[in-house]
Amino acid sequence: MKVKAAVAWGPKQPLSIEEVDLEGPKKGEVLIKVIASGVCHTDAYTLSGEDPEGLFPVILGHEGGGIVTEVGEGVTTLAVGDHVIPLYTPECGECKFCTSGKTNLCQRIRETQGRGLMPDGTSRFSKDGKPIFHYMGTSTFAEYTVVPEIALAKIDKSAPLDKVCLLGCGVTTGIGAVLNTAKVEEGATIAVFGLGGIGLSVVQGAKMAKASKIICIDINEDKFEMAKKFGATDFINPKKYDKPIQEVIVELTEGGVDYSFECIGNVDLMRAALECCHKGWGESIIIGVAGAGKEISTRPFQLVTGRVWRGTAFGGVKGRTELPGYVDKYMSGEINLDDLVTFKLPLEEINKAFDLMHEGKSIRTVIDFE
Amino acid sequence: MKVKAAVAWGPKQPLSIEEVDLEGPKKGEVLIKVIASGVCHTDAYTLSGEDPEGLFPVILGHEGGGIVTEVGEGVTTLAVGDHVIPLYTPECGECKFCTSGKTNLCQRIRETQGRGLMPDGTSRFSKDGKPIFHYMGTSTFAEYTVVPEIALAKIDKSAPLDKVCLLGCGVTTGIGAVLNTAKVEEGATIAVFGLGGIGLSVVQGAKMAKASKIICIDINEDKFEMAKKFGATDFINPKKYDKPIQEVIVELTEGGVDYSFECIGNVDLMRAALECCHKGWGESIIIGVAGAGKEISTRPFQLVTGRVWRGTAFGGVKGRTELPGYVDKYMSGEINLDDLVTFKLPLEEINKAFDLMHEGKSIRTVIDFE
Repeated sequence: MKVKAAVAWGPKQPLSIEEVDLEGPKKGEVLIKVIASGVCHTDAYTLSGEDPEGLFPVILGHEGGGIVTEVGEGVTTLAVGDHVIPLYTPECGECKFCTSGKTNLCQRIRETQGRGLMPDGTSRFSKDGKPIFHYMGTSTFAEYTVVPEIALAKIDKSAPLDKVCLLGCGVTTGIGAVLNTAKVEEGATIAVFGLGGIGLSVVQGAKMAKASKIICIDINEDKFEMAKKFGATDFINPKKYDKPIQEVIVELTEGGVDYSFECIGNVDLMRAALECCHKGWGESIIIGVAGAGKEISTRPFQLVTGRVWRGTAFGGVKGRTELPGYVDKYMSGEINLDDLVTFKLPLEEINKAFDLMHEGKSIRTVIDFE
Repeated sequence: MKVKAAVAWGPKQPLSIEEVDLEGPKKGEVLIKVIASGVCHTDAYTLSGEDPEGLFPVILGHEGGGIVTEVGEGVTTLAVGDHVIPLYTPECGECKFCTSGKTNLCQRIRETQGRGLMPDGTSRFSKDGKPIFHYMGTSTFAEYTVVPEIALAKIDKSAPLDKVCLLGCGVTTGIGAVLNTAKVEEGATIAVFGLGGIGLSVVQGAKMAKASKIICIDINEDKFEMAKKFGATDFINPKKYDKPIQEVIVELTEGGVDYSFECIGNVDLMRAALECCHKGWGESIIIGVAGAGKEISTRPFQLVTGRVWRGTAFGGVKGRTELPGYVDKYMSGEINLDDLVTFKLPLEEINKAFDLMHEGKSIRTVIDFE
């Protein structure tokens, strides 16, 4: 079929809106009509050319919501008309990872997904007979996309897809990092480095976990008001201090925070986030994606004296099992997505979404396909 | 009183056996007749002059066993005749750390202990009127020593002090790292870097936890036989491989180990220990003490994909609460200490203990004061 899509022909180029060819779903695959898709920093990272695993030409987009329009052979858990959120971290329920009870990092289709292909090693997208790569197994910057059954969370049909699409990446990552990875307990103190969509979602998660102090660190003070709305209690602009920001936080909290979250991808801040944790038990969770080749470092004494260094991907959330519950929490008002959607644009204006992001004007721009 | 002690007058000098003056116990303090003391790498580290916090002159020793001969004012939990193990990590039971339920790192007397002094800010040891520093709050290389009540574990009187003294440091650190810090579960796979006293104790702890595979990494293959006796199942000499040892381990274990332990203090091995852990859940525990100024590093991707980096001090064991149980486990045959005591020497020959250590000939030499 012919579908309208935003194609990234190469790095550092604007996306090009055009008709491409999309093959129907093969065995174990599902055709989705995309209703909405957030534009996330990871899309921008790959488009920038700095992602060492970036492939072109590609159809980006991984924060989508859609409706099933066709199912391939052997698909049993989804039917035409189901509402779904595509998962870049699938959940097959059967691999060593899924059955470990310790991680959400299903590896069933990782190898082909990493090569921009469907599980059978081919692409469904093409233009003039030449294949276009899939992206993160989702490629939601297209009117229609094909996704493996194991990479789709079936959700409440009454949920607005132009909001809950955000649960496909940033919001779930932030809230999950707090609830699943750190397992923040009531009364704990928290530091959040960076107030983008993920950082605000960490704030939101910390509020849900009833943290007693939620300290936000950002050099853009304009973001503090929104963070306050999500539950933040304290605000630090590192530019206002001469000393390392970890020292400022340790002083403010009489010894450090119980949990910290790095939501930017800056290895120096990852170190600061670890070192602002309380001796004996403080845990730091890396969420941000660092540039290629960048390394984190610290003195081992930081760990020997009880701090713990962790990371998280998609907030440790198992998509098919847990994401429907996140949607329900949005519907019941427990999760706030509305304030995160700062702009809505049609697919034709998707390049403006990247501009707004780079100018720091948006939290999330949602592409509305309807 | 006059007591015989091994005095370190300065770094890189042999210890000098001589009579020194020891004041009796002040408020909250206890006088101990030392019966035996292990000689640990940490003593050698401080004596080498490389310990940036090392103070001289000092009476070293922190792996001791003794008998209470006098108690100071206000001491309620110990009486003359009690058998005790001095604790360099005390347990006051009242500070923020002790009551957190999350750490064994009691901070009550940390500041004075770090300055080589008793909690009132003075030393009990002196020679010709000039103070000699305490070491790690224990100073067990002396016939008698004074230790705060909160830094003494009261143990079974029938336990041989020349064996259970090893529970004052290395053995408890290794076993505790497995049981308390990593919380290794039955069937787990383990990698142990370095087969000194701590490494062998990690092996022993992993056996107690019923680990399914206990892989030992050491460049000295002579140590493998002893490790096997303690329960090790696999042995790797990094010198026999051209590629990074983490890759060897990942291949051997089909993806990496569930837990790894660095027992040497080498920051490059700390990285290898982290990176040989299984994606999704592998946890690496730093036990070894790195040289001053050394830093650990890795790509943050290692953590984002589910590995966890921790450290441990005294194996996360609360000395007064848990150490008596470790002694009982030795008495019941569950913990093997006998094979770790490779030499016994009188105090007069203590320098030979350091020689044996540096020559790699001893696991532990115990100084026998009787």
